Amino acid sequence: MRLLNKVINGISPVYKEVAVETQRHIDNLLKPIGSLGRLEDIAARISSITGKVSNKLDKKCVVVFASDNGICEEGVSGAPASVTITQFLNMTKGLTGINVFSSQAGSDVILVDVGVNGDLPYDQIVNKKIRRGTRNMLKEAAMTRQEAVQALETGIDMVRELVAQNYMVIGTGEMGIGNTSTSATVIMSLTGRSAEEVVGKGVGMLEPDYQHKKEVLKEVIKRRQPNPKDPIDVLSQVGGYDIGAIAGVFLGCAYYKIPTVIDGVISVAGALLAARLNPLCVQYMFPSHLSAEPGYAIAIQELGLTPYFILDMRLGEGTGCPFAFYLMDNAMAIIREMGTFEQGNIDGSILVDTR
Amino acid sequence: MRLLNKVINGISPVYKEVAVETQRHIDNLLKPIGSLGRLEDIAARISSITGKVSNKLDKKCVVVFASDNGICEEGVSGAPASVTITQFLNMTKGLTGINVFSSQAGSDVILVDVGVNGDLPYDQIVNKKIRRGTRNMLKEAAMTRQEAVQALETGIDMVRELVAQNYMVIGTGEMGIGNTSTSATVIMSLTGRSAEEVVGKGVGMLEPDYQHKKEVLKEVIKRRQPNPKDPIDVLSQVGGYDIGAIAGVFLGCAYYKIPTVIDGVISVAGALLAARLNPLCVQYMFPSHLSAEPGYAIAIQELGLTPYFILDMRLGEGTGCPFAFYLMDNAMAIIREMGTFEQGNIDGSILVDTR
Repeated sequence: MRLLNKVINGISPVYKEVAVETQRHIDNLLKPIGSLGRLEDIAARISSITGKVSNKLDKKCVVVFASDNGICEEGVSGAPASVTITQFLNMTKGLTGINVFSSQAGSDVILVDVGVNGDLPYDQIVNKKIRRGTRNMLKEAAMTRQEAVQALETGIDMVRELVAQNYMVIGTGEMGIGNTSTSATVIMSLTGRSAEEVVGKGVGMLEPDYQHKKEVLKEVIKRRQPNPKDPIDVLSQVGGYDIGAIAGVFLGCAYYKIPTVIDGVISVAGALLAARLNPLCVQYMFPSHLSAEPGYAIAIQELGLTPYFILDMRLGEGTGCPFAFYLMDNAMAIIREMGTFEQGNIDGSILVDTR
Repeated sequence: MRLLNKVINGISPVYKEVAVETQRHIDNLLKPIGSLGRLEDIAARISSITGKVSNKLDKKCVVVFASDNGICEEGVSGAPASVTITQFLNMTKGLTGINVFSSQAGSDVILVDVGVNGDLPYDQIVNKKIRRGTRNMLKEAAMTRQEAVQALETGIDMVRELVAQNYMVIGTGEMGIGNTSTSATVIMSLTGRSAEEVVGKGVGMLEPDYQHKKEVLKEVIKRRQPNPKDPIDVLSQVGGYDIGAIAGVFLGCAYYKIPTVIDGVISVAGALLAARLNPLCVQYMFPSHLSAEPGYAIAIQELGLTPYFILDMRLGEGTGCPFAFYLMDNAMAIIREMGTFEQGNIDGSILVDTR
């Protein structure tokens, strides 16, 4: 709790004046004013985080937290719980989607066990296991308050380790059968929105199973009554260790001033939790794609962010993050490589600013 | 006209059966069925063009056609016509947006003069000049019918040359002050939509100038009466050499079976022209971003395509294309690099297909 409080209270705003300086630089580049749209905004926001106009975030990673969820006992998932461990091991072998997309973006994949239901004695997996899966939240709180704090602090601690390894931008991923359910209950609790609006089909399920999933999660909220004013209570009642650790990454990145990327619905549930613990976190967050899970759109809007890609992806693992890394790389390249009006022999003052 | 007719009549459909085979392969990869959304569709579509399930399109380029437009005499642009030549030369020096984004995507930039109002004796510029700018379409047809055919054949011929140089995917770009006006008149002519719906602010202009631009282009359509059933008439009455050459690239790429990328509003006007000459062209086209120019959304919908990125970009030059190249690279990497259910020790038959 000491680490968590230190970080929550130690987050400072981004350097807004550097964003203004960066936008001034961008407005002097060889193009109509404002014509690179959101790429300009990405460049200015990165500058406001690093404190420098010109940037290159070479060392990138997606940190994937794996964890099991007790709610799977209630038949809310389209895949058996055993898939968590199998697919997590597939990540160590480079076989999964997050491996492929990370490789394309020049990003590393960092695998962290925060709560897998089994032993994972592998060099490629960081062992931060809190417990072998959460409890069944239909019957009792998913985790104790102490475990919730531990999950958040695990995320913060991972950021500290990654910063020490010179990582400059971090994406948030996960692996855990049942975690579209826990994300839905976290988003429902924090936003007051209904199961009908938030719950999706996860890995895919037929209509009767989908109805069942919604009924179970509605009942979870009714029984647990998570307190929306107390994000740690929400996490402990209806969350997962992965969501907690991801929220910790967002807090840690804001504390250490590192840009962080949101993937899909599980990741955005963690982002929303972090934002409720300290709203300044959002200044360090970047969206990626519009996830096909319905809760995503609600949560990202709540954060005041808008995704860049419409790809109908719903794989999770952090697979949206490398695509955002690519946009960020391009946005930073504008600053470093585009010529100015002076260099390009064009009188920039002829152009009208219609923003 | 012989080359144009040969190409229009020589375009064949993509290999639909290879797309089906590719989708079957994708459905056996380590992920919920359909969970990579539009990336799966991109991979299957590329396969249907090349005829192979597994692909790598290493050699990429954006071909930028530069041209001047007689309509600039009417004060429809926020920048002086002289900027066409200056900014085109900036592209030879690597100073512009298209240089930066192409470099990030590992793509070359091919510069072609199809109608710049000036001499350009530079090694880096391919000289295919048809005329020093089009005529003022408010007063007479922008070009003769013969010139329109020549513009289309120039695009086709560029594809032939690029294919000979082993380029495997081609993006379409342009540089030409006044070409958001000609794109608007082409899109208005081909779709029957109004100036209010189609005309945008181009490089940026104040409200009175914007009203003037719309009035001028409305009057152009009224006077020229381009025949929507005859795309070559539309091009010659109210088009530009750049739009004609871009349309030729789409025709040529369909003929030579090369995936082609649409950038913004000028590029999509060329794509729509090509599709009206032979609708099979669309099977070889890939969108990139949703341009901020209003005519783009109308034209891309008419083609039945949906952009992947929402970046509020309106720079032109082909700047959206390298971003699409990146998506295509990732989509192809799925096929080459992701593991199958068998390799990953997961029983894929447990998963439900909810597509």
